[in-house]
This record gives sequence, C-alpha cells and structure tokens, in this order.
Amino acid sequence: MTQHETSATAIGTDAWREGRVGLWLIGGRGSIGTVVAVGLHAMRAELAPPTGCTTAGEAFAGVPLPAFADLVIGGHDVSTTPLRERAHALVDSGMLAHRFVATADDALDRADAEIRPGYDRRTHTGSQADAVRRMAADITDFRERHGLGRVVVVDISSTEPILEDHVEFHDPELFTAALEDPDRPLLPASSIAALAAIESGSAYACFTPSAGIDVPVIRSLATERGIPFAGQDGKTGETLLRTALAPMFTARGMRVLSWAGSNLLGGGDGATLADPEAVRSKLATKTRGLVSLVGDHVVAPLHIDNVPDLGDVKTAWDHIHAEGFLSSRITMQTIWSAYDSMLAAPLILDIARLLALAAADGQRGAIPAFGFFFKDPWGSDVHDFSQQTIALHDWAHATGTRVRAAAESAVTPA
Amino acid sequence: MTQHETSATAIGTDAWREGRVGLWLIGGRGSIGTVVAVGLHAMRAELAPPTGCTTAGEAFAGVPLPAFADLVIGGHDVSTTPLRERAHALVDSGMLAHRFVATADDALDRADAEIRPGYDRRTHTGSQADAVRRMAADITDFRERHGLGRVVVVDISSTEPILEDHVEFHDPELFTAALEDPDRPLLPASSIAALAAIESGSAYACFTPSAGIDVPVIRSLATERGIPFAGQDGKTGETLLRTALAPMFTARGMRVLSWAGSNLLGGGDGATLADPEAVRSKLATKTRGLVSLVGDHVVAPLHIDNVPDLGDVKTAWDHIHAEGFLSSRITMQTIWSAYDSMLAAPLILDIARLLALAAADGQRGAIPAFGFFFKDPWGSDVHDFSQQTIALHDWAHATGTRVRAAAESAVTPA
Amino acid sequence: MTQHETSATAIGTDAWREGRVGLWLIGGRGSIGTVVAVGLHAMRAELAPPTGCTTAGEAFAGVPLPAFADLVIGGHDVSTTPLRERAHALVDSGMLAHRFVATADDALDRADAEIRPGYDRRTHTGSQADAVRRMAADITDFRERHGLGRVVVVDISSTEPILEDHVEFHDPELFTAALEDPDRPLLPASSIAALAAIESGSAYACFTPSAGIDVPVIRSLATERGIPFAGQDGKTGETLLRTALAPMFTARGMRVLSWAGSNLLGGGDGATLADPEAVRSKLATKTRGLVSLVGDHVVAPLHIDNVPDLGDVKTAWDHIHAEGFLSSRITMQTIWSAYDSMLAAPLILDIARLLALAAADGQRGAIPAFGFFFKDPWGSDVHDFSQQTIALHDWAHATGTRVRAAAESAVTPA
Amino acid sequence: MTQHETSATAIGTDAWREGRVGLWLIGGRGSIGTVVAVGLHAMRAELAPPTGCTTAGEAFAGVPLPAFADLVIGGHDVSTTPLRERAHALVDSGMLAHRFVATADDALDRADAEIRPGYDRRTHTGSQADAVRRMAADITDFRERHGLGRVVVVDISSTEPILEDHVEFHDPELFTAALEDPDRPLLPASSIAALAAIESGSAYACFTPSAGIDVPVIRSLATERGIPFAGQDGKTGETLLRTALAPMFTARGMRVLSWAGSNLLGGGDGATLADPEAVRSKLATKTRGLVSLVGDHVVAPLHIDNVPDLGDVKTAWDHIHAEGFLSSRITMQTIWSAYDSMLAAPLILDIARLLALAAADGQRGAIPAFGFFFKDPWGSDVHDFSQQTIALHDWAHATGTRVRAAAESAVTPA
Ligand SMILES: NC(=O)c1ccc[n+]([C@@H]2O[C@H](COP(=O)([O-])OP(=O)(O)OC[C@H]3O[C@@H](n4cnc5c(N)ncnc54)[C@H](O)[C@@H]3O)[C@@H](O)[C@H]2O)c1
Ligand SMILES: NC(=O)c1ccc[n+]([C@@H]2O[C@H](COP(=O)([O-])OP(=O)(O)OC[C@H]3O[C@@H](n4cnc5c(N)ncnc54)[C@H](O)[C@@H]3O)[C@@H](O)[C@H]2O)c1
Ligand SMILES: NC(=O)c1ccc[n+]([C@@H]2O[C@H](COP(=O)([O-])OP(=O)(O)OC[C@H]3O[C@@H](n4cnc5c(N)ncnc54)[C@H](O)[C@@H]3O)[C@@H](O)[C@H]2O)c1
Ligand SMILES: NC(=O)c1ccc[n+]([C@@H]2O[C@H](COP(=O)([O-])OP(=O)(O)OC[C@H]3O[C@@H](n4cnc5c(N)ncnc54)[C@H](O)[C@@H]3O)[C@@H](O)[C@H]2O)c1
Ligand code: NA
Ligand code: NA
Repeated sequence: MTQHETSATAIGTDAWREGRVGLWLIGGRGSIGTVVAVGLHAMRAELAPPTGCTTAGEAFAGVPLPAFADLVIGGHDVSTTPLRERAHALVDSGMLAHRFVATADDALDRADAEIRPGYDRRTHTGSQADAVRRMAADITDFRERHGLGRVVVVDISSTEPILEDHVEFHDPELFTAALEDPDRPLLPASSIAALAAIESGSAYACFTPSAGIDVPVIRSLATERGIPFAGQDGKTGETLLRTALAPMFTARGMRVLSWAGSNLLGGGDGATLADPEAVRSKLATKTRGLVSLVGDHVVAPLHIDNVPDLGDVKTAWDHIHAEGFLSSRITMQTIWSAYDSMLAAPLILDIARLLALAAADGQRGAIPAFGFFFKDPWGSDVHDFSQQTIALHDWAHATGTRVRAAAESAVTPA
Repeated sequence: MTQHETSATAIGTDAWREGRVGLWLIGGRGSIGTVVAVGLHAMRAELAPPTGCTTAGEAFAGVPLPAFADLVIGGHDVSTTPLRERAHALVDSGMLAHRFVATADDALDRADAEIRPGYDRRTHTGSQADAVRRMAADITDFRERHGLGRVVVVDISSTEPILEDHVEFHDPELFTAALEDPDRPLLPASSIAALAAIESGSAYACFTPSAGIDVPVIRSLATERGIPFAGQDGKTGETLLRTALAPMFTARGMRVLSWAGSNLLGGGDGATLADPEAVRSKLATKTRGLVSLVGDHVVAPLHIDNVPDLGDVKTAWDHIHAEGFLSSRITMQTIWSAYDSMLAAPLILDIARLLALAAADGQRGAIPAFGFFFKDPWGSDVHDFSQQTIALHDWAHATGTRVRAAAESAVTPA
Repeated sequence: MTQHETSATAIGTDAWREGRVGLWLIGGRGSIGTVVAVGLHAMRAELAPPTGCTTAGEAFAGVPLPAFADLVIGGHDVSTTPLRERAHALVDSGMLAHRFVATADDALDRADAEIRPGYDRRTHTGSQADAVRRMAADITDFRERHGLGRVVVVDISSTEPILEDHVEFHDPELFTAALEDPDRPLLPASSIAALAAIESGSAYACFTPSAGIDVPVIRSLATERGIPFAGQDGKTGETLLRTALAPMFTARGMRVLSWAGSNLLGGGDGATLADPEAVRSKLATKTRGLVSLVGDHVVAPLHIDNVPDLGDVKTAWDHIHAEGFLSSRITMQTIWSAYDSMLAAPLILDIARLLALAAADGQRGAIPAFGFFFKDPWGSDVHDFSQQTIALHDWAHATGTRVRAAAESAVTPA
Repeated sequence: MTQHETSATAIGTDAWREGRVGLWLIGGRGSIGTVVAVGLHAMRAELAPPTGCTTAGEAFAGVPLPAFADLVIGGHDVSTTPLRERAHALVDSGMLAHRFVATADDALDRADAEIRPGYDRRTHTGSQADAVRRMAADITDFRERHGLGRVVVVDISSTEPILEDHVEFHDPELFTAALEDPDRPLLPASSIAALAAIESGSAYACFTPSAGIDVPVIRSLATERGIPFAGQDGKTGETLLRTALAPMFTARGMRVLSWAGSNLLGGGDGATLADPEAVRSKLATKTRGLVSLVGDHVVAPLHIDNVPDLGDVKTAWDHIHAEGFLSSRITMQTIWSAYDSMLAAPLILDIARLLALAAADGQRGAIPAFGFFFKDPWGSDVHDFSQQTIALHDWAHATGTRVRAAAESAVTPA
C-alpha cells in the first residue's frame, strides 16, 4: 500500500484526548472555506475518503491527531453570501461534484451560522484594538459554546497588497498606542485577525501571502503568549512542483539557468490577483523558494493572468532551462492544471490537526516543520519539498510521542 | 552557493591515495563513450567545469575520490569507427560544441587505441569461456601497462533483448560446463563482459537494461571474488523526472491514477530501440520504479518511438492524472528534451569515481546506494530520488571516512 | 460578428420546404447519440445556442436547411440502456452539464422509444438479407409514422476491425447470393446498416472508420438507387488540428520531417480502441490525411491508449519536427483536450441538415464537399481543412440555390 | 511531390528579364541580415536548397521572379560589427550550421562592404532631410555601381517604440518644413529609411512593427511616386500559428473565449524587447490579428520575456480555451520553438523577389496580397493564413502573367 487508504475516522482518534477542535477560518465564505466545509461533511457522511490530506497518510500512523470528524468550523468573513449558496455555485462551475453537496445543506448552514463579520476597514468605526477585542470574543465564545478543547485560526481571506514597514511595527508601546487610536488604521485586516487569534489564545496559520502575524511586534506577542503559528502562503500547485523538481537538478549537478512561469486562472482568486498590487505579494513568495533552491543567478520571469472564462481551474506552464555536461542544453516544461481550492482545502484540515497537536505540546512561535505547507516558510529556509516532508514526519512523531506520554502520565492514577 | 562550483581538479585529490583509475567501457565507441572521452579531455584542458557530475557537488566535499583527471579510458567495442570520427559526427549533429572537440584529437586517439574488440557472437569462434579469458586479459594488460590502482568496468553497449532464464544460470557446475562448450553460446555479450570484469578483479557497473552481471551464478561469483557492482539501466531523463515527482503526490495524499509516457528519439539508441525485443527490456525497467512509488493500480502506457530526424535529442511527454480531495481531477504534463548521451556521460564518471571508492573500501556485491544512478536499482527497492540522494551522500561520506582512515593508518610509521 | 450568433430556430427555416427530417442513428444509444439527443432538446428548449455547429455559422446564412428543431431522432442499437440513463451517467462523469439534462427526460424517452434493435451477429438468426429488410422496414415505418420528408442515416456505432476484401464485394450476383445465405455472415454490422439505409431510400453518412457503405457493390447500389452519401470517420480533434496546421508548413516552404502523436482516452471509445484490431482501422484513417498534406517521407508514429480514469476527455499530444531555412530545426507541439463526443455531436446535426439538402437536390453517390467532416473523405483527396471549408461553403450555396429555385418554381402557379 | 524540391537556380529565371535585383537591408548587420547573407551564399554555392522560402514552392512555378542568385545585398546599419563576425557568432550560438559559414567569408565581406551607416539620432547632425538625401544617394549609388534593374528596401532594424501622432504627419507642407529643420528630429529612424527608399525610387517593405513608411504623408508620397510597399511586422512564429489555427475554430462554430500567450527569447531581439516601450509595439501587432479572427470578446493576455540564456531560440506557449456544443470546454495548447531569425530570413528573400515583380508591373501603394508575410497587414484586413495564401498565389500569377506579357511584347520585333 504505497498511498493512504485509512478511513477518515480511524486515524489517531484513540490517542487524541484533547476533545473537539475548532477550525476558525478568516475568509471562511470563500472558495477554500466552502470546500473545507463540504469536505468535512462528505468525510463525516462517509461519502469521501481523505484523499489529498497529508495527515491521512501512512506516514502519520500513530500520531495522536484530532479526527477529521472532530473539527468544528467557524470564522470571520466580510461577505454575507451563505456557504450553501457558494457550494451550489461551485457545483455549477464544475469544481465540486453534485454528490458531495446534495446532502450538505444542513451542515453548511450550521457552519455558516458560526461565521461572524470580519474586519472591514471601509465600514469599521472605532479603533483597531476594538476590532481585535470584538473578534477575539467571537472566537472565545465559539470555543465555549461548543466546549472545544482548542481553536486553530487559519487565514484564507483575500490576498492583500504588500505591507510597508512602519516604526510602530518594531516598538510595542508605539504599536499599542496606534492600535487604540480610532484615527490610525495601522494594520491590514489579516493582522487584526492574527491579533484576535492571539488574544483568544488560539494557534494561528497564514495560508495567504498577506502579513497576518508576520509583523515584528505581533510575532513577539504571539511567542510571549505561548501561541504556536505557521505560514506563509499555501504551497499547492506550481510552487509545490518547483520545490519538488528543483532539487533534482541540483542533486545531479545541473545548473538551472532560467525558470519561467505563466499562470492562468479565473474565479475569485483570479479577480483578486488581477490587481497589480495584490499580485506583487504573490509573485514575491512564489519566486523566493526557487532562488533559494537553484541560486540567485536564475532568470525567473513569472506571470499570473486573470482569465475569467477558465473559472477556478488554474493552469500553470513552466519552462526550465538547465545546463548539463559540456554546456549541453536541457529543457523541461511542466503544465499543471487543477482546481486550486481543491488543492488548498485538505491542507487547511492538515494544518488544523497538526497545529492542534503543536498547541497540545505547548509549542510556541513559528514552527519550522510546517514549511511543508507553505511557499515562504516562517522559521525555516528549507524549500526542498522532500526535505520538508521528512522534517514534517519527524516533527509529527516526536511531538506526538510527547503529547501521548503527557496524556498517559496525566491519566495515570497516583 | 547552491550548486557546485569547485573545479574538476580540486576535488578530493589530496585524500585519494590509490593512484589513477582505469575506466573500461564496454561499448566505448558509442555516443556515451565518445562524450565521456571528450568530456575528460575538456575537463583536463580546463575548457569545461564538471557540470552535470553529481560527485562534483558540494555534497561530496571531503569524500576521497579519484580526480577526473586521474581517470584513464579503455574498453571493448564491436565497432571500429574511431572515437575521433564519432566525436566530429557528434559536432555535426549539434550534440557536442565544436570548441570541446577542436583540440581533442590526440586525447581521443589515445583512448581509441585502448579499445579492444568486444565479444561478437556472430564472429566469435571458440567457447564463451575463451572470450571471457581474452577480454579479462585485455583489462589486466591495460591496468598493468598504465600502472593503474584499479579498473572500473562500465557497460554502455547496445541494449540487448530480455534474457530468458536457463537452468545453467542457477547451477555453477552446469554453468561452467556450458561456458566451456564452443557449441553453446549461453550468455549474451553483456554477461561475457561482466565475467571478464570479475575475472580481472575489476568493479563493475551496468548502465544498460541488458543482463550483464545479473545472472544468479555470475552475481554469486562476483560477491565471492570481492567485486563491488552496481546497476541497472542509467536513470537520466523521463524516469529520473518520474522518481523525483511521484513522491510529491504521495506526500500530499493524492492518488496517481495514470501516468502515460511517450518518448521520441533518433540516433543510435533510437535505432536499437526500434527493435521490439530490445525495447521490451527498456520499457520494463522504466515502469518498475513508477509502480513502486505510486502503487500498482496505476495505468501506465509507455511508448518509445524511433524518429530518426530528431537525431540524438530525446523528447519525452508524460501525462499524469491524479485524484485529489473530493475526487478532484489534477492533471500534470511534463515535456523533457535533452541529448540523452550528454545526460549519461557525467554519470559514468561519477560511477567510476564512486565504484573506485567502494573497491578501495573492500565492499563486495550489489551496492544499494548506487540506486541513485539507475532505473532499476540492484540491491535496493528505493526509487524515490530524494531518498536515493540522501542514501548516496550518506554512503559516500561513511565509505570515504573509512577509506581515509585506512589510508592514514597505513602511512603512519610504526 | 466573427462567429455565428444566430439562434437555432432562425436559421434557414423559411426557405426549407421539405418538412421535418428524420435523423436515424446507428449506435444511437452511445455517447454521441446521447449528446445529440440532449442537444436537440436543449436547443428546442432554448437552453443552448448551436455553438459547435458549423451550419449555424454566418457562412451558411441563406442556405435552405431544415431547422435543428425539425430533426426527429430514431435509430438502431444493440444496447438496451436507455438514453435517459446514459444522459444522467454523462452528467455524473462531468461531460454534460446538469442544466441541460434536468428537463430532458421526456424528450430522451421519446427518442429512446424510436430506437430498434441493431444487427448483432452473435444473436441474429436468418440471412443477412433478412436483417437488412427488417432494419429498412424500421426506418420506413419511422418515416411514415412521423410524416417525415426524408430520413438521413448516420452510423455512430462502435468501430469495427478493418474489413478484409472478398470476391463477393465486387460481383453483385455473388454478393446477393451470399447475403441471402443464412450460413454466410459476409458483412459487418455497419454494412448491413448501410444497406438498410439504401433499401429505405435514405441518405447515409458513416462517422466511424468501419466499412459501412464503402464496399464496391454497395457503393454502386447506392449510386444506382439515387442515394447521396458521405464519410468516413468524423474529424474532430487531433486530425482536425493536423489538417488545419499542416498546410501552414507547406505554404511556407518548410519540410515536415516527423509528426508523432499520442492519444489518451477512456470512456466507451477508449475501451473499444483498446482492442488492437479496432484501433488499426482508426490509426489508418488518421495517418492518411497527414501523408497527403506533407508528403510520404514523414515519420508519423501514432498511439491511442485506453486510460480508463480519464473518462470521456480525450487528450492528444502531437510533436512536429520541420526543417526550415538552412536546415534549421523547428519544433512544435500541440496538446488538445476535449470531450470527444461533445465535438462529434454537433457535426452529426450538421451532416443531417446538409445531407437532407443534398437529397432534396437529387444528388447521388459520394459527395466530395462533405470531406470537411471526415478524416478520410470519400470522393475527395482534399485534406487541407481550409480548402475543405471553402468547398463546403461553395457546395452549400450552390446546392441551396438550386433547391430554393426548384421549390419556388414548384409552388409558382401556372 | 507535396513540397517544393525545385532548385534555387531553376525558378523562374528564364521569364524574369529585369536583371539583377538589389536587396537593401535597413539593419543589415543584425541576426536576420546575417542569415540572409549566409543563405544567399549557401544557395549560390549549392550547399542548401531554398527550404523555408515560400516562393520556391510549386505554387509559384511559372511566376517570373528574379533568381535567388540574382539578389545583391547592401544596406544601412548603425552597428559596425562585420557580417563575417556576426556569422561566426551565430555558428557558436548553435543557430547556423558550421558548414554554411565555412566558405562564406568572401561573400560576407563583399556584402558587408555595401553596408553604409544608418541614421542614428544620437550622432546625426544636420536636418533629417539631409539624412534622407544621403541615404537615398547610398542606395542609388549601389544600384548604379552594380548595374541593378531595381532595388528593394527591407527594414529589419531594431523595433522602435510606438510612434505618437503629430500634426505634421498629416500635412505635407508642415512635414517638409519640419524635416528640413535641423532642430526638429520629427521622425524615427525607420521613417527616415522609408523616405530614402522612396527618394531612390525603390520598393519598400517593413518587417518590423516600427512606423517606417506608415506615416500618412509618407504613404501618400510613396503612392504618388509610384512606389509599391508592404508591411508590417514579419509573421513568423506564434502569430503565424494563430492565424493558421484560429479559423479552424470559427469554421466549426466553436467560440474562442481566451487565447493566452507567453514568449521566451534571448538574443538581440530579446534584449530589445526587454524595453517595455519597444515591447508595446510588438504586443499590439501580435494581438490585432487574433481579435479580428475570433472576435473582440477574446481574453488574450500576452507576454514576451527576455531570457538571455535561451539565446536566439524563441519558445512560445499558447493556451486556448474554446467553448463547444452545450458549453463544453475545449482546451488546446501549442508550444513553438525555433530560431526566430531562421524563420525570418527566407521571408526577406521572398519579399524581395515578389516586390521586384510588383515594381516590374508598375504597382504602387500598399499591396494587400503581401499580408501573407505580416502580423499587421497594410492594405488588408485579412488575417486568416489560408486565405492569405490563396490571395498571394493569385496575385503572383496574375501579376506574373502581366509582367511576362509586357516583356514579350517589348521584345517582339516590329
Ligand atoms: N491553492 C489555493 O487556492 C491557494 C494557495 C495559496 C494561497 N491561497 C490564498 O488563499 C486565499 C483564499 O483563496 P480563495 O480561493 O478561497 O479566495 P476567495 O476569493 O474565494 O475567498 C476569499 C474570502 O475572503 C473574504 N475576505 C476578504 N476580505 C476579508 C476580511 N477583511 N476579513 C475576512 N474575510 C475577508 C472574502 O469575502 C472571501 O469570502 C487567497 O488569499 C489565496 O491567495 C490559495
Ligand atoms: N541517457 C542515456 O543515454 C542512457 C540511459 C540509460 C541507458 N542507456 C543505455 O546506454 C547504452 C549506450 O547508449 P549509446 O547512446 O551510447 O548507444 P550507441 O548505440 O551510440 O552505442 C552503443 C555502443 O555499443 C557497441 N556495442 C554493441 N554491441 C557490443 C558488444 N557486443 N560489445 C561491445 N560493444 C558493443 C556499439 O558498437 C556502440 O559503439 C544503450 O544500451 C542505452 O540503452 C543510455
Ligand atoms: N469525436 C468522436 O467522438 C468521434 C470521432 C470520429 C469517430 N467517432 C466514432 O463514433 C463512434 C461512436 O462513438 P461513441 O463515443 O458514441 O461510442 P460509444 O461506444 O459510446 O457508442 C457506440 C454505440 O454503438 C452501439 N453499437 C455497437 N454495435 C452496434 C451494432 N452492431 N449496431 C448498432 N449499434 C451498435 C453500442 O451499443 C453503443 O451504444 C465510434 O466508432 C467512434 O470511433 C467518434
Ligand atoms: N522572426 C523574426 O526574427 C522577426 C519577426 C518579425 C519581426 N522581426 C523584427 O526584425 C527586426 C530585426 O530582428 P533581428 O533579430 O535581426 O534583430 P537584431 O537586433 O539582431 O538586428 C537589428 C539590427 O538593426 C540595427 N539597427 C538598429 N538601429 C538602426 C538604425 N537606426 N538604422 C539601421 N540599423 C539599425 C542594429 O544595429 C542591428 O544590426 C526586429 O525589429 C524584429 O522585431 C523579426
Ligand atoms: Na523562511
Ligand atoms: Na490591416
């Protein structure tokens, strides 16, 4: 059995003794959020195995993780289009098969009822600190009402423009002062959400290239408060491929001279990235890993085009030119085509399960082993996907062993 | 520095104390053999760095290996077209740059003068044992005349049809009897060559899908005689790619449903593989690794077509269909285009250096860590290229440490 | 307006005075047949414009053709799976959008009720002449019950192996004798169907590479009886592309040296073509056009692989190598991906409309201008798609003018 | 014989009675110019047939055109690197085969000696009218010294930024005044060259997207002076392909929704197009034809990236999404890879031969039939490559017939 075939429910449940886990999604009504909700329903209803989930693989056998069925969804969003409606639209567009959505209405409505208004700079009145407090309270309330052991906050909201540096980002006092000032909207929405996660004592992951927790004072705060976090920008398609392939050239002593990429996509993400400011943050995270793997001499033009008629299918063409023995020319092209949100959703579930484990182990700060999931890993310079795979497996087993030991010693009567 | 930039001459020479190493090529007048000879000349003349050579990479820093400049070429071939002529033809075909061949005539003539007639079933008279003795003597004579520390034999001759099993292959006595019988040409040429390697006490590698040493009685003999060996079928293009990519799907829990491949090539290898019998051995070794990596449910049609007008450039198209979350369709295509022999030649140099090290360490039998170089690794079931990379690095450092230690204790005065 | 935007109903109906037209499909319960039936429903219900239909284009404005809405479906098939069930299965497989099938049940049931048992050699008792008579009666009965002006028979049944020649195929008397002999099943099913078409006085088209009407005595009979016919093997994907592209190379004086192709598909057609005999007929028709366009020096390996997991989407990769100025290398690759039956279905409608016109004009024998639709055009050696386009336009207007003139003179009072 | 095999010398020479023809190249020391010069030498020396030349095809049999051997090269350039040096550099880069250049030194030196300094705004002193007069004199002098029947001027110099409109461009008097004013450099270099062509009475073609003759007052002047001209921007690779393919979709009633393109190239042209201003003119001419063929609803993102390591090989990836029957998705991808200048050079020879014919026939103004050669045809809205092919053939035969008739009546004794 070279691939996982373990059922969703069987995995790790016995060892996990921390109760159900909240999965709080910033941008929970977007495409990824909708697929996450439909997917959890489909797995609970045994309509689908956890294909595409890393943590369902054999390599994670024995690691004490919350069951998929023990994840409870809530979130923040600025959109009011209900999950049910989004799900049916994704069926019409061909992304989701009808059979998974057919019986999902109740589950989707329940999840949708747990989505609270996100931070919207255009409509928010009061200080940003007020927003943080309100949103942290939303999360705390969710945890308490559902009797959850922990909550993991994952940001899957729309990509923001690159954040410029400010002196406040490096000085806790100036930062706090600015945050309380209703006239100074210092932070982007993603960082407000990150602060709310910290404030509510929740683990946090940033699946987008937006700043989120990655502001010096906020990172320090998170570490102080004992919050484990991970990011940045989910690695799903072209970049995943690149970090799996590039080490092959290096291992064989070939010199990659250029690696050009062209991405075509429509859908919500296509529309967002049609904005030249938003696309800049994306392009930056996409190129960083490549340079680190093959050297900064590499010529790497990269384009992302919004092609609305293609809908949610992303197609990426890469053209690689490497130099081999006696200056010989080697060219390779890859064409990748997939529904982007279908690649992302299972990773959100993986991240939730693994961050819950990290939190159970009392880890704090950026966790390098999560680099496996991200284009621009926090706390790590490793981009080689196979090294990341080994690192994640090792981390999961080591952490799992500690968590299980602690659980066992805790229940052992004196 | 993410890629090697060390010069050819600087690598490991100080630590290596075993003298010059003979590189005896079965099929030495073929494309690969010609590129090997031109390449060694170009590196000696400092016209080219060892790009494309694995062992020139940083990962091998400190491993005591013979210098490229200390490899001396000889071989067997049934062709009489001199290397010089082959090299100029490869310039005309666009494979070799003129600048590397321009000054190579003398070096090529010297190497060519060391190529002896190979075993040719159609013209050979006498028993196959006679052929083995004559060819072993060729190798021994070569070693002695050049005062070489060791010789490594690498088979890069034309691919043979799949070898059918015989009772003699499992019984040393029957085997010896048949071998001495002039009327029973039991073995293919590649196995005669393997026996000659053993007989002359040389390490051996099989870069083709032909049987070579891989006949039970011959393998046993090799091990008994203390011969280290490695194979089988050099992993250079499409298969290399597959074994680098397939683990990515598995790591992410995606289920690869089909992996179809189409290879187009002309040149000598194209002509050989136009023979449906010869191509069967090639197709077999190419598919084995894939199945082992993604599971035997995979549908994997594979074609190799002889397209003479394409010359020595091989172009391979692969189409991969994987299933992701909620049965979502993921398709990926790869197009690889390169001069096959330019990919192969540096690996021959790597294998020669590393097998010399293995021999210096007294290793015997199939060496699993060499799986890195082969489509169908002997002594190993590992096909994942990144795992193979780690295994090779580990092996090289461990072996190197022993060899250096032995060398140092040997020279230490009492 | 560079593409047709005319609505289904508006086209040519006023000029066409021959009443409704029967579209009798041999293999009517297959994928193509199902899409044809769903498509006619969708156009009648104004759910879909006639996108993909050649005859809906501006170039056919003014040509008197039966309206799409005036086509009535019947047919023969050996399968008993109803159209309704097939249609829903095609929705599940992703080929047909749910919205077109949602309201189609009644229309599909009506069409399905007009499908009679096809000729099945394994179960048929009696002579083949009996089968022809029974099937011709089915068609005549259909025409009369529905009060149709004409019927057009189109063969879209499973591809048969290449038909070997027989002396009976060239001698009407021997032929008739064999046909009446219950012990001599001389003809393949496709030719029985063609005879039934002739017998019932219906125009005929062969959309498959099977023999059909293309047996010398049958062709003569058709011409004698005044039957217009067209074939052979619908040109929809890779071959369409080739005949559009190849003339470009010729026009520019480039020499195409090789044109390799690899086709991957699953579905019903994939399964049929997994049979090496059936695939031979397909490969033959596919290569003929290419050779005629670029010269018989071309090296053109071609593969069709059955890859069940790909379902009904066909993916074709072509690799073209041409020689340009001063022997310069030009390579081009095309990758085509589409639901094959969705490409074929609108052509069936086009053929029905245009063959009805031919019949109204009293044309008989193979009609060269229909080469536009076929891989291996009967009555023509033209494969260049743009020349075929011009020829079809010219033919349609010339024929239309005659038909309209005849209709007008017929209705003119004395 | 589906492709031309006629030898260079045999074509049409007997019928052509206008003597040798000068081919005056603006930018004659660039890549294309160098290949033109090497190619003429190779054909004269019978080292190469005219593969890649349209006018060498069967379709032009009987058209009275100057022989390739009767073309004499001269030109203007701002570079002083001699052709011989450029040619050897193109051998090193792999673009030109050594065998064509090996014996070309003398021929290249002769051509190089006929290249005069081009107009360079940075160094020119005096009015632009002075420059025009000097350059026209260069051409006239060349014609007279070589006793040429006619000269054809073809602009193959570096692409200029898009030219902004000026009131002077529409008013002959203002225009002349500005031109004589040393302080007002009104025109780009390409238009100075076009004026010099007119002034010297030479036919003119613009192979670049630069303005050249395409300034209203200059076009009028050319027509007045009886100058035939043709343009604009040579159609060689991706755009050629698009105009051959797009009509296929339209003919079959499919609706092309998007056509995205990505071009990678290095070399001189790559460097020029790295300038965002220069690339704008190129992108404009590339997209115009597409829109005209498939409708202006098409989404057509297009990128040209300078990737220096790729050298002169241009690789273009196109992704086409069309809608078929019942909204079915059809995707097609093309990958084109060739040495751009090798595609362009034979067209320059074709244009020279055909413009000489046009001039012999006394044609003036933009010649629509030359649209075959250009991305953005002057005097025509036809982009469909097969229609252009037919138009060119028709034009050549009609013109040739007149020219031959005139020649024959001229030589007929009274
Ligand atoms: N494979 C992938 O899909 C992938 C990979 C890496 C990163 N990402 C990133 O994931 C994010 C989500 O992708 P998607 O396809 O679901 O996009 P989407 O546009 O469908 O969804 C984004 C959601 O965020 C919401 N949102 C916007 N501003 C918000 C705010 N201030 N607070 C709360 N919610 C807000 C939107 O209303 C929307 O519901 C994007 O940033 C994308 O770049 C996706
Ligand atoms: N990337 C690669 O090039 C690659 C990868 C894997 C395996 N291989 C294998 O390497 C081998 C060599 O490839 P090549 O491109 O150099 O082929 P080639 O045809 O150019 O050379 C083969 C040589 O072997 C010689 N030969 C044939 N029979 C012989 C015999 N009985 N004894 C001695 N020599 C004999 C031939 O005369 C010829 O010189 C082939 O079997 C090929 O399948 C190559
Ligand atoms: N683009 C295209 O789809 C395309 C292009 C060219 C040719 N074709 C040909 O069209 C044919 C139909 O394709 P499809 O995808 O619909 O295939 P399919 O397998 O879905 O349908 C074939 C139908 O023919 C029926 N059939 C088999 N034997 C019969 C017989 N003796 N009499 C009557 N019916 C019989 C089967 O029961 C089935 O319903 C195939 O031969 C295919 O090669 C298709
Ligand atoms: N397939 C093709 O190669 C193709 C197709 C269409 C258009 N074009 C166009 O053809 C042109 C030439 O292409 P190339 O590859 O030979 O480029 P190149 O850069 O190699 O050559 C351009 C030449 O123009 C010369 N030049 C620059 N300014 C000049 C001036 N003011 N007067 C005279 N000469 C001048 C340069 O010195 C150089 O020698 C480019 O504009 C290119 O865009 C090429
Ligand atoms: Na990092
Ligand atoms: Na025009």
